[in-house]
Amino acid sequence: MLFNTIGLSKYVPRDECNLPDDLTKEIARYKPIVEGIINASVNGVFKKRTWRTLARFVDKFGSRIAGSDNLEQSIDYMVDLLKKNQLENVHTEQALVPKWVRGRESCWLISPRLEKLNILGLGSSIGTPSKGITAHAVVVESFEELQKMGKEAVEGKIVVYNEPYISYEKTVKYRGYGAIEAAKLGAVATLIRSVTPFSIDSPHTGWQHYQENVTQIPTAAISIEVAEMLHRMFQAGDDILIYLFMEARNLPPVMSRNTIAEIIGHQHPDKVVLVSGHLDSWDVGQGAMDDGGGAFISWNALALLKILGLRPRRTLRSVLWTAEEEGLVGAAAYFHDHRNDVAAFDFVMESDEGTFQPLGLSFSGSHDAGCILKEILKLMRPLNATQFATPMDGGPDIEYFTNVGIPGAALLNANERYFWYHHSQGDRMTVEDPINLDMCTALWAASAFVVADLSVDMPR
Amino acid sequence: MLFNTIGLSKYVPRDECNLPDDLTKEIARYKPIVEGIINASVNGVFKKRTWRTLARFVDKFGSRIAGSDNLEQSIDYMVDLLKKNQLENVHTEQALVPKWVRGRESCWLISPRLEKLNILGLGSSIGTPSKGITAHAVVVESFEELQKMGKEAVEGKIVVYNEPYISYEKTVKYRGYGAIEAAKLGAVATLIRSVTPFSIDSPHTGWQHYQENVTQIPTAAISIEVAEMLHRMFQAGDDILIYLFMEARNLPPVMSRNTIAEIIGHQHPDKVVLVSGHLDSWDVGQGAMDDGGGAFISWNALALLKILGLRPRRTLRSVLWTAEEEGLVGAAAYFHDHRNDVAAFDFVMESDEGTFQPLGLSFSGSHDAGCILKEILKLMRPLNATQFATPMDGGPDIEYFTNVGIPGAALLNANERYFWYHHSQGDRMTVEDPINLDMCTALWAASAFVVADLSVDMPR
Repeated sequence: MLFNTIGLSKYVPRDECNLPDDLTKEIARYKPIVEGIINASVNGVFKKRTWRTLARFVDKFGSRIAGSDNLEQSIDYMVDLLKKNQLENVHTEQALVPKWVRGRESCWLISPRLEKLNILGLGSSIGTPSKGITAHAVVVESFEELQKMGKEAVEGKIVVYNEPYISYEKTVKYRGYGAIEAAKLGAVATLIRSVTPFSIDSPHTGWQHYQENVTQIPTAAISIEVAEMLHRMFQAGDDILIYLFMEARNLPPVMSRNTIAEIIGHQHPDKVVLVSGHLDSWDVGQGAMDDGGGAFISWNALALLKILGLRPRRTLRSVLWTAEEEGLVGAAAYFHDHRNDVAAFDFVMESDEGTFQPLGLSFSGSHDAGCILKEILKLMRPLNATQFATPMDGGPDIEYFTNVGIPGAALLNANERYFWYHHSQGDRMTVEDPINLDMCTALWAASAFVVADLSVDMPR
Repeated sequence: MLFNTIGLSKYVPRDECNLPDDLTKEIARYKPIVEGIINASVNGVFKKRTWRTLARFVDKFGSRIAGSDNLEQSIDYMVDLLKKNQLENVHTEQALVPKWVRGRESCWLISPRLEKLNILGLGSSIGTPSKGITAHAVVVESFEELQKMGKEAVEGKIVVYNEPYISYEKTVKYRGYGAIEAAKLGAVATLIRSVTPFSIDSPHTGWQHYQENVTQIPTAAISIEVAEMLHRMFQAGDDILIYLFMEARNLPPVMSRNTIAEIIGHQHPDKVVLVSGHLDSWDVGQGAMDDGGGAFISWNALALLKILGLRPRRTLRSVLWTAEEEGLVGAAAYFHDHRNDVAAFDFVMESDEGTFQPLGLSFSGSHDAGCILKEILKLMRPLNATQFATPMDGGPDIEYFTNVGIPGAALLNANERYFWYHHSQGDRMTVEDPINLDMCTALWAASAFVVADLSVDMPR
């Protein structure tokens, strides 16, 4: 790589940048282009277009879980839409994805009093027998407490986890492994407090794991409020009896597709700057936030550049991943299929933690690539979105690339409420704001364009 | 009344106070007593007691709608609890209350795509025929828009209201009268955007009205998100077909009870300072906020004073109203039954807009009574709850008294999120905070005690 060979960072501390003057000046010269992109998105021909296209999409299809006909129809729709927007090389690439089906589900507190509890079965959970499961419950706050309780107390029971929310990263293990740990002690089902800092009695679903040689038991999310209530009842010595019914089942994998569109580079058509989000969602709400917004700023960024007649040196490739929610399945297939092209990827981008007000980019990659990105972010002053953070946070699908040293970035945005809606019925279009989406599309288009058009590759 | 005869405000502007020095000094002398009350509630023997007793109550009974056996059992429980807390003259007084029963309910969007919609039927609504109603929908933002649309467009349709939220007071008319206005134009049912500024796909129920000579049609609340989605679909020209099923029905009124407990005044046992909240709730969530918190600070205020051995000159009476949600039904019966005792009521208090962090009191009544209350509120500095507002807001049941000139106050508290939970499944114990409840109980007990113990009556 040209840029790496000049060894610019040899005598510079790792947290400081010392880009060659020529490169700094080159980046600064993109100011009018970046302003044009921002202006078109925020005030011009593209104003509210990301919101409008996203609203139409999520209203038409609703939620889009991997393995569903609905997701496949929404992919067909996207292929048409990308072609209508004059994007290039529009096509799909196959990925075999899990097919988990929720079916009907219900849960009742029977003792100490009758109350229907709001639940959402967790992805990959098996169902209950057709008559449901009726069992007494024990309530714990942690895996440690469960272990202490021991097999005698847990066997034949429904284990309720009322783990406190610390952060998504730290707390999600209860959703992911709660059923395994309870089953090891003979539990017959688990109800897991939703992984969220805020609730209006709203359960949040998400993927969970089973382990070989550990009995698979049904598992569902309950709201913060219900978990806390059951915990209080348990501590008060109430006899807690719960009825759980779930039709959930895992069917054989089916073929799905990643959806791809490009603006082909005029100088290095084989070099790729990838911008992405995932098109699939959970089977609740509308998947407008997770990750409709990320997917739609990714293809609209290209559509905007196309309208403005901006074709960079390298190819800009928008990828709308499939089956992210079941464990980055679409991205894994894509990375596998392109395992011999890795050198072609100059830079990878994903937005999968909200498209609220954009603040900048979070980054993983080499020090020198980070320095270039910081310089590019200075151009985003009109958006007030110049923040640079590292490591990258919120680009799960592109970690296949960043893990092998390809520099990448995710959207930094004012997403303090992201986990309020995440994987819940509340992930609907109302969460998305037209002006924020315009600004996200602008940031996404401008930064991807500049990276793709620079005279130098992004240093590995 | 002694105080009124001295005419202290004759030459004082209405917004200024000029209390007699003796009275100002008298009020100031309550400082150690008020500090003792606050200290006992926040740090002492009563710490977390309001929260604990409320949690046990709402966990045991859950929601408590008027007309239900559950509400009556919860009233029996309260009578026992008030007696166990050594309160005096514990008894109930009858009130005939509506009995509306929700039954099962469901709603499906059939076209342009199939999706189960989260609804809550509105109180007093009739049900649908047993096969449900399937009809096309029209969506409006206001009554004006509905009128413009006219009978031809509305007849045979389900009217969806997607009214923007301005404030509860200004927006609630759509819940209250939406069915009437739609039925006048021949609509077969209405779905009304929930009256709330925030939602996680959460519908909010509440009372609604029918009008004589206007056909009664079923009516239910939908979430903000769904109302907005249906509106977008309607504006896009989609053919919206909805299936609505509701078993709701109005049964004959049944006898319920207001629950009363006292600390009898040592000098003027016939003069009453009333502190109150309502014990009934909607039939969703746990009724912990609306109005478990208000009811529980009201009787715990007396229990706290009793423990501290504080008996004021006048009688302190705690009233836990029944059937507030159906239109202040318990309070109306109580006021009617006490119509010849009105002179006995010195001051009335209610908390029915949350028991978040207390800020002070809102007040309705004479200028002079307001001046006394302002002076008393100065004693609440240790709680940082000295704010005085007027007119009173959040004391619906006691308006029967304030409307005839009896001074009254409601709890001012940091209730910015009150309507996020109000009448929804999210009105659960998780909303309530132990420290805030201690502080509310302290403010409630201290201000009620001082008013009840002053040498002068509250001026009318």
